[in-house]
Amino acid sequence: MKKYKVGMIGLGTVGTGVFKTIQEFEDIEIVKIVVKNINKKRDIENFDSTLMTTDPNEVINNPEIDIVVEVIGGVEPAWEYISKSIENGKHIVTANKELLAKKGEELFKLAEKNNKVVLYEAAIAGGIPLIMPMKTIMAGNKISKIRGILNGTTNYILTKMDVDGASYDEVLKEAQELGYAETDPTGDVEGFDAMYKITTLSTIAFNKRVKLQNVYREGITKVRAEDMKKANELGYKIKLIASGNLDENGKADVRVHPMLVKKTSALAHIDYVTNSVYLKGFPMGEVAFTGPGAGEFPTASSVVGDIINIVAELKHSDYILPMMRNNYEEYADMIDISETYNKYYISITAPNNIGVIGKIGNVCAERNISLSTILQKGLSEDNTADITIITELCKEADIQSAIKELSECKIDSIIRVEE
Amino acid sequence: MKKYKVGMIGLGTVGTGVFKTIQEFEDIEIVKIVVKNINKKRDIENFDSTLMTTDPNEVINNPEIDIVVEVIGGVEPAWEYISKSIENGKHIVTANKELLAKKGEELFKLAEKNNKVVLYEAAIAGGIPLIMPMKTIMAGNKISKIRGILNGTTNYILTKMDVDGASYDEVLKEAQELGYAETDPTGDVEGFDAMYKITTLSTIAFNKRVKLQNVYREGITKVRAEDMKKANELGYKIKLIASGNLDENGKADVRVHPMLVKKTSALAHIDYVTNSVYLKGFPMGEVAFTGPGAGEFPTASSVVGDIINIVAELKHSDYILPMMRNNYEEYADMIDISETYNKYYISITAPNNIGVIGKIGNVCAERNISLSTILQKGLSEDNTADITIITELCKEADIQSAIKELSECKIDSIIRVEE
Repeated sequence: MKKYKVGMIGLGTVGTGVFKTIQEFEDIEIVKIVVKNINKKRDIENFDSTLMTTDPNEVINNPEIDIVVEVIGGVEPAWEYISKSIENGKHIVTANKELLAKKGEELFKLAEKNNKVVLYEAAIAGGIPLIMPMKTIMAGNKISKIRGILNGTTNYILTKMDVDGASYDEVLKEAQELGYAETDPTGDVEGFDAMYKITTLSTIAFNKRVKLQNVYREGITKVRAEDMKKANELGYKIKLIASGNLDENGKADVRVHPMLVKKTSALAHIDYVTNSVYLKGFPMGEVAFTGPGAGEFPTASSVVGDIINIVAELKHSDYILPMMRNNYEEYADMIDISETYNKYYISITAPNNIGVIGKIGNVCAERNISLSTILQKGLSEDNTADITIITELCKEADIQSAIKELSECKIDSIIRVEE
Repeated sequence: MKKYKVGMIGLGTVGTGVFKTIQEFEDIEIVKIVVKNINKKRDIENFDSTLMTTDPNEVINNPEIDIVVEVIGGVEPAWEYISKSIENGKHIVTANKELLAKKGEELFKLAEKNNKVVLYEAAIAGGIPLIMPMKTIMAGNKISKIRGILNGTTNYILTKMDVDGASYDEVLKEAQELGYAETDPTGDVEGFDAMYKITTLSTIAFNKRVKLQNVYREGITKVRAEDMKKANELGYKIKLIASGNLDENGKADVRVHPMLVKKTSALAHIDYVTNSVYLKGFPMGEVAFTGPGAGEFPTASSVVGDIINIVAELKHSDYILPMMRNNYEEYADMIDISETYNKYYISITAPNNIGVIGKIGNVCAERNISLSTILQKGLSEDNTADITIITELCKEADIQSAIKELSECKIDSIIRVEE
């Protein structure tokens, strides 16, 4: 039996999972693994440590390697290793969402030029089968809407804040201790990770390249325990939602920010580190995919799935997988966040002047902002009023202008509300 | 541009959806459609009625046709048309779950012998991407557990019974009027449709052929409004669940029957005609797919997805899709339902004798059946007691024997309970 040779770059959590899983496949062999530290103890039984090297050239320039698996993340040196590997005739499997979002266009052009394939099922929603289904069996669809919970760390934090009534800072600390959040959590909690993923996901869905700089991003660091509580009282949960819409004129609106989602919606029930992606398309209608967004084995499932699909094709032809092209002829025409229409949850601390509700009402009315909910709680000790409003659909720019005009009020939170 | 030629057999609801959808693809052309009634009005704009024929040979024996799409359902004449088409060198796309369950082995042997592919994404869970993902990106997994709501008609009926508190007969009548149930609803309500689907689905999942005659089946016709109400009070919903388990010894347990599922579980929230499939595998973990199980356009999405994947391969090679083989080396070793362990909800009308609860308790205890819930409601007018029990895990054969011994009681319902 011919063995197809795999070289790995990285042997962290995901890499270890890939290594263990691939042992089951008689026709696939890992021949070399690039690591930073050759002396680090690896959690693999009977591990042949001579497979490891600190020299990337032993993979990149290794003529016997058919497929390079990159699981180190980040743009550099991953880009250097991947691009050289492609030029050296290797197919690529990567879990690198940041690289895809920042260098996707260049990457896929290079791959096509070299008649090689770059697969990345593991880069978005970890263990959930999503990219390959979108590119194969769903390929007859025009997808117009994406809603996803794509980052397990932030979903864990928001779920714990909700369940325990705890503050963001408390839960973050706990999540760090449990290993669900990194020491520097910025990439997750400020929404960068989800932004990278929705950039690539919306590019595939809309069949036009979405540029990272046009994707709006807000993280979860400003979400307060009080907002969680109020949202609950009003029938909502707060989730970090990655979304994409393609309107009838072909304009795309792609973003990541916290949202109030109705408790009756499916995404409201996606808790802790679970990920979920909802897609609306024609002719398929509405479908949802739910599962583990990260973890050693779920992510390995996707990486190995990509590898065995490449191997299956290589067995009969040197051609790239027919449906796996990622070169889009056009860039998506994007809508700026200021031009979008949303519903808003706004929590306001107002001075106890007679007429403050009236002023809020007037400021909104002047901008055609209708309010669907107004809640005022009894005065606090400092003689201020705690006012919560939820608006009907209105323009982002109008909301920003209204808030500017309410200068005597303290705006504690503004969070968009899913329709 | 080379056009790939498709011949269709059937132009009902799904066929019409396929026809409309395929117009978008410049490289695919429908050249002939076999129909029963050429004079029937078709809901297609600017339809060229000369495409229709009543003679199946115009598709089956048509040398210019590359792919035959079969959407008439049932074993005959579908099997005759499909088998002849394969022998005549055509690839097949079918939505025919009954044919797959009854003739799958023969069908896929014939296809492989002729180096042709038979794709059937639409046959199971209509518009949900499931078969191709399982065969491609999830192919590195060992799947050990399947739970699915695979029949929209029965899920609609059970949802309406739950929401309206109505009886099975009332809701069935309404569903028939709305077109959600057929005039003869047997195929759906007695669980045949779901049984066909789980037979094929578990065959793919377990990578061994599951024989239809070894799949246990119970429909929903005996589920009472009272059972719905009691289930609700106890924290459950009642759903028709298609399930498959593969135990550590490689023994498969595949079945369709109503089940009490916890309200907190995801399947409890799958309502009306929506379908959902939950899979547990290694290394991927637990993933779920939710979406439309039927309908003109969702089903067309899957049929067209299959067609364009075949076309993509045909463009570069005459080889069959590498991952799409369906020939299994072994039959699954099956566990008989009598040997399985389940929890049971049992609703009993007992004579008002002192000691009837005691007798129930003794009969169960003698068979090592533990009870987790016992509810006795006040006496009815006819001086009988309404007793509801939920057991812990126990053997099906023991439950059947216990029930036999409780001859003085009327067993109103026995429904298995999801752990």
